[in-house]
Amino acid sequence: MLKIALAQINLLVGGISVNQKKIIETAQRARDELAADIVIFPELTITGYPPEDLLLRPDFIKQANQAVLAIAQAVQGIDIVLGYPESANNYLYNSAAVLRDGSIFKHYRKNALPNFGVFDEQRYFHAGAEPCLFSVKNTVIALTICEDIWQQGLIEKNKQQGADIIVTLNASPFHAGKIHLREDIVCQQAKKAEVALVYVNTVGGQDELIFDGASFVVNTQGEVVFRAEEFAEQMSVVEFNHNMPTHNTCSPLYNEISSEYKALVLGVRDYVHKNGFKGALLGLSGGIDSALVLAIAVDALGADHVEAVLMPSKYTQDMSNEDAILEAEALGIKHHVIAIEPAVTAFNGMLADLFAGAKTDSTEENIQARCRGVLLMAISNKQGKLLLTTGNKSEMSVGYATLYGDMAGGFAPIKDVPKLLVYQLAEYRNTISAVIPQRVITRPPSAELAPDQVDEDSLPAYSILDPILEMYVEQDKSAEDILAAGYQLADINRALSLVDRNEYKRRQAPPGIRITPRAFGRDRRYPITSGYKGSQ
Amino acid sequence: MLKIALAQINLLVGGISVNQKKIIETAQRARDELAADIVIFPELTITGYPPEDLLLRPDFIKQANQAVLAIAQAVQGIDIVLGYPESANNYLYNSAAVLRDGSIFKHYRKNALPNFGVFDEQRYFHAGAEPCLFSVKNTVIALTICEDIWQQGLIEKNKQQGADIIVTLNASPFHAGKIHLREDIVCQQAKKAEVALVYVNTVGGQDELIFDGASFVVNTQGEVVFRAEEFAEQMSVVEFNHNMPTHNTCSPLYNEISSEYKALVLGVRDYVHKNGFKGALLGLSGGIDSALVLAIAVDALGADHVEAVLMPSKYTQDMSNEDAILEAEALGIKHHVIAIEPAVTAFNGMLADLFAGAKTDSTEENIQARCRGVLLMAISNKQGKLLLTTGNKSEMSVGYATLYGDMAGGFAPIKDVPKLLVYQLAEYRNTISAVIPQRVITRPPSAELAPDQVDEDSLPAYSILDPILEMYVEQDKSAEDILAAGYQLADINRALSLVDRNEYKRRQAPPGIRITPRAFGRDRRYPITSGYKGSQ
Repeated sequence: MLKIALAQINLLVGGISVNQKKIIETAQRARDELAADIVIFPELTITGYPPEDLLLRPDFIKQANQAVLAIAQAVQGIDIVLGYPESANNYLYNSAAVLRDGSIFKHYRKNALPNFGVFDEQRYFHAGAEPCLFSVKNTVIALTICEDIWQQGLIEKNKQQGADIIVTLNASPFHAGKIHLREDIVCQQAKKAEVALVYVNTVGGQDELIFDGASFVVNTQGEVVFRAEEFAEQMSVVEFNHNMPTHNTCSPLYNEISSEYKALVLGVRDYVHKNGFKGALLGLSGGIDSALVLAIAVDALGADHVEAVLMPSKYTQDMSNEDAILEAEALGIKHHVIAIEPAVTAFNGMLADLFAGAKTDSTEENIQARCRGVLLMAISNKQGKLLLTTGNKSEMSVGYATLYGDMAGGFAPIKDVPKLLVYQLAEYRNTISAVIPQRVITRPPSAELAPDQVDEDSLPAYSILDPILEMYVEQDKSAEDILAAGYQLADINRALSLVDRNEYKRRQAPPGIRITPRAFGRDRRYPITSGYKGSQ
Repeated sequence: MLKIALAQINLLVGGISVNQKKIIETAQRARDELAADIVIFPELTITGYPPEDLLLRPDFIKQANQAVLAIAQAVQGIDIVLGYPESANNYLYNSAAVLRDGSIFKHYRKNALPNFGVFDEQRYFHAGAEPCLFSVKNTVIALTICEDIWQQGLIEKNKQQGADIIVTLNASPFHAGKIHLREDIVCQQAKKAEVALVYVNTVGGQDELIFDGASFVVNTQGEVVFRAEEFAEQMSVVEFNHNMPTHNTCSPLYNEISSEYKALVLGVRDYVHKNGFKGALLGLSGGIDSALVLAIAVDALGADHVEAVLMPSKYTQDMSNEDAILEAEALGIKHHVIAIEPAVTAFNGMLADLFAGAKTDSTEENIQARCRGVLLMAISNKQGKLLLTTGNKSEMSVGYATLYGDMAGGFAPIKDVPKLLVYQLAEYRNTISAVIPQRVITRPPSAELAPDQVDEDSLPAYSILDPILEMYVEQDKSAEDILAAGYQLADINRALSLVDRNEYKRRQAPPGIRITPRAFGRDRRYPITSGYKGSQ
């Protein structure tokens, strides 16, 4: 029997020595506690994924290559398969090494280098062209890395060369529904080539990306016979009788809404912890967005590490303050109340001469939002807690947010969550325990920056806006396409022109967690200066 | 005689219909006023460069391809060579078309697609593999696009196929010294292959990039015999007797310091105008950075379109206000004085309970900077003027700036200018006319956020800091390398650790003008969450 360990671990991008230590401990556990013959780590294990332009630093590459040798020396008596940026022949490769008996026994260089969406691998790496097969206990293993197995032909080529089991090292980022896409493609490929396949994914949050784990094993019939947990580290061992996995234990898949929620929680937890913050704080308005972000933050960090600040103005309704306090109490977190009027009054006075005779406009609304930004940043600076922003994807799309105001903060948990999904996630969170007051979910959304203001004064209803935005931003549909899908031209033009003209705001927004196939971030790179107009 | 027109024009990224109109007018001028046989436009003429992810939109590509046909129809009686994103065989190519007699007569698909530095062409384009040669007045012209001619072999291959003249369409971005590098490589290639070469570059600012024009013609001996102006639009015609250019009129090259200054002026002018702002404003502190930015802004936009705001605090020295006013008066711009004390006092009062017992730290300094940010943004919002930030590259590197404070603004003209170069540029500007008071240049730099504060309290002297930063940020040198270059370990560690830990600030900074080989922007892509430590 061949025992393959799947090391689904959470790595620190750039943290070579931290990762080295973790890899050594994990490999020792696989050998000593699980009696594995071989342990498989995720793609670019040594550096974490994606290391971005750190890969251009010679000192970084040198350290990474030294770490591989150090690991080979440190852990013997088990084959270790790990990923690293391999420096050879004046090229850099995205490689996997097989460590055996203290040295690099084999290496594989990734053939297919993705350079689309969130990926920039052709910026850094040279493509390999050779397969890599080796034997463990008379079973032939072939190595592949992530994008390789999304391509047609590579698995069959390995099978023809004698592979019994395909092993694949991955850093496959999450978005809603991705896991089905991923398993479907891999299972079809395994079935077609009649090979077993061991898929090891990394897990954790890295700036805007979430890696969801859910490593799995597929038998030669293309069936998933093992699946590790989603959104958590897990060390597992799967036994093979030649190319036949001998057991069948699959962690059930979460449904879409709960997987999105778990991704958001993991994203906040990893961003706060990996960046060394003491906790998080946020402005709690009594509205749905900050209510959801607060619940996520508490689930990620624990109530003791989260604080909320209520910053009412004369436009804040009593129910907003009441509901904010109800949620803070339900979650057991510390909260503060600081009315913004003194600062707003000061600014309006300081600007009175200059603005004399000018009409009141969004300038005055922005001053309120920015006074809140100054207060929250002061508390963040003083306490060493990360300020979370609370804007959602619908707002980010149309620029319904104030730069340096409610957009001030280090991390934007729900930046990629459209408003309608914000409601669904809030309802979902309340099914675990009722922490978000029902009135927060049912009242009409408002920025409360002017008397009796509601979002629908300036924007189409979210039930209309959100699908338009999804078609335009995520699917690259034109106004014509969206019209053909049954929406009104006025709504389309309003939405599209707002998206077009707010790129400058998004460029200065904090990073947030990607949960859709296209977030505002690495995978949507638009010019600010642009004559393109999507509206008609 | 063959008359080739070089159309060095300024395009609007994404503005297909604006660009189409300009191309038609320019081609008509080349035909009617210059009697040219053929007119050459820059790379991706139709869309401007770089269009980034607009290239993923099917509607955008369709419009671009339709525009090429419309231009062919609109202007006949002259060959037109222009660049466009060609959609064919389910691929997108970075192509050049030769328009003749109302239709596309020939097309060339760029062979070498750069995917490094500021370039991401493999994200969008499929590489062509074929040459493209055609005859005009019995002279054989071969087409190439930008990166193609930086590669060895392609020019010679075209020569072997019979090319008399190589024509190359470019969008080659500026950095200091780039023009020498560019001309040297191209001249060597032309000389080696014994062909003449016509190099047409675009000109203008596009977000952080500056295209510097300076189109040129090289004879078969590898000599530059014609050069268009740097940093300005120019239509020129060069006559050829077969492959021999018949005249020799080269605009002189600017020296490095004046080319940097001109790049900054062009960058500000194009960002403000192309984005439709009514002008610009900035906070004028009496320090060197804002003094330089003000001069650049006035040179870019004219005194009538620039306003300065003085926002003194109790830490502001009298000479700061005096010098700021002196410069405003020398440049003939409107200025306002708004003391920040009322807002600072309001915030400190609002936070007094929460901060009771806590030590004074950078929080209080940040509050002052953020009060200035709120004031400037309010004026920007009310007047429709773009707020310019005044931070330099040294500060951006080490995070010596306040997010949402002095970093608030839409565009950062000197973001890529190291502090020592700020002084040189100020001295240079004063040689044109003395507008920056001498005391601004000679006094020790200070943020004036605490009593008697000077930059060197918290940072190594700029004469030490700047070279360390250049080695670390632009050249990817390690601490060990920098130590070997003769710097002190304490200074190195201080600088490198500040660079490492301030990526989060840079990510939220406004875009600025790239003038070095590596700016903080498209060409330096670092993770925020990172375990990498450059310090020792």
